[in-house]
Amino acid sequence: MIDLYTFATPNGRKISIALEELGLAYEVHSVNIVKNEQFRPEFLRISPNNNIPAIVDQDSGVTLMESGAILIYLADTYGAQLWGQDRWTTLQWLMWQMGGLGPMLGQVHHFVKYNPGKAPYAEDRYREEAKRLYGVLDRRLGEAEFISGTYSIADIASWPWISRYEFQQMDLTQYPNVLRWYRAIAARPAVQRGYDVPALGQAIPLP
Amino acid sequence: MIDLYTFATPNGRKISIALEELGLAYEVHSVNIVKNEQFRPEFLRISPNNNIPAIVDQDSGVTLMESGAILIYLADTYGAQLWGQDRWTTLQWLMWQMGGLGPMLGQVHHFVKYNPGKAPYAEDRYREEAKRLYGVLDRRLGEAEFISGTYSIADIASWPWISRYEFQQMDLTQYPNVLRWYRAIAARPAVQRGYDVPALGQAIPLP
Repeated sequence: MIDLYTFATPNGRKISIALEELGLAYEVHSVNIVKNEQFRPEFLRISPNNNIPAIVDQDSGVTLMESGAILIYLADTYGAQLWGQDRWTTLQWLMWQMGGLGPMLGQVHHFVKYNPGKAPYAEDRYREEAKRLYGVLDRRLGEAEFISGTYSIADIASWPWISRYEFQQMDLTQYPNVLRWYRAIAARPAVQRGYDVPALGQAIPLP
Repeated sequence: MIDLYTFATPNGRKISIALEELGLAYEVHSVNIVKNEQFRPEFLRISPNNNIPAIVDQDSGVTLMESGAILIYLADTYGAQLWGQDRWTTLQWLMWQMGGLGPMLGQVHHFVKYNPGKAPYAEDRYREEAKRLYGVLDRRLGEAEFISGTYSIADIASWPWISRYEFQQMDLTQYPNVLRWYRAIAARPAVQRGYDVPALGQAIPLP
């Protein structure tokens, strides 16, 4: 049994989707970041950076924060099939998501969606970076069906961020390879189950 | 022999420091990002995101971009001693660096150091986040000598970002555990060799 501390964000959904793909038993603990519940002292002991997602694997005793670390842990411990065609290719694209796609789209959400008008220079900066990153992903998905050849934790990490294309004011039809990939993953039953965790009745956006 | 494509940035220095720590033979290929050399077509084939660092390991045939992926590859292939006291703890903090410390301090550099006055709201946002992240690191280094107990790729990933404390207008004396750790790592001969790669005559800043 795995305890999952999460909320309805792209980083949180990475882990609920991976757990569903692997068919693992898990218990959801909602950490409502809108109410600042991530700063509670009992959560800090699990997640020293006060961020979701985090897990406690009761079988191994491992406690982990950071979605990238958790995905690697789950694939290494329970799901070699989620390593795609090649471990290093998967890892390089997972790191691209962790260090680029996620943080930069997060800034788009902050400036463009939630704080428009406060820093027009920053809005332009992150909108341009979003277009560049979507372009990198589109080029990659023109070479391969999934990011690392076959479906992997690199897809599971990237897809929830792309699912916020409306927040980012991005038009998926401008990136045909991303659009094909996005729809294929959205159709997976495990992704549909993992998307609405914790259960808030949220549906996958479909372009 | 490893081909290292790099420049004098925190992400580039992670890899030259790791290679020096492991005593591996490597050839440096300078990719001058000030002159946009990372956009050359021949580099795109190595680094699909047009970013340094990247490596080609001539012995294994592996080509990799993304500093986090390269550090994991080097530790798994050549340097188990760089995994610290525990693989998962090291990985969670490496991911914290990849997804948080690096990208957010990178934004501090952009707004505070290179583009002051263009977006005061963004300057405040990233300065506050830098303080929060330094605080997380200081708290962790109050519990352990190094980030993952013993010296590891989590330290090698984080230290070059902290070495830009002047760009970030951060006062290391406000974070005594970070200061102790910073000085200890700065004194390592491998770090001193790996810092000035490609050789531009740059010295480690010392507070």
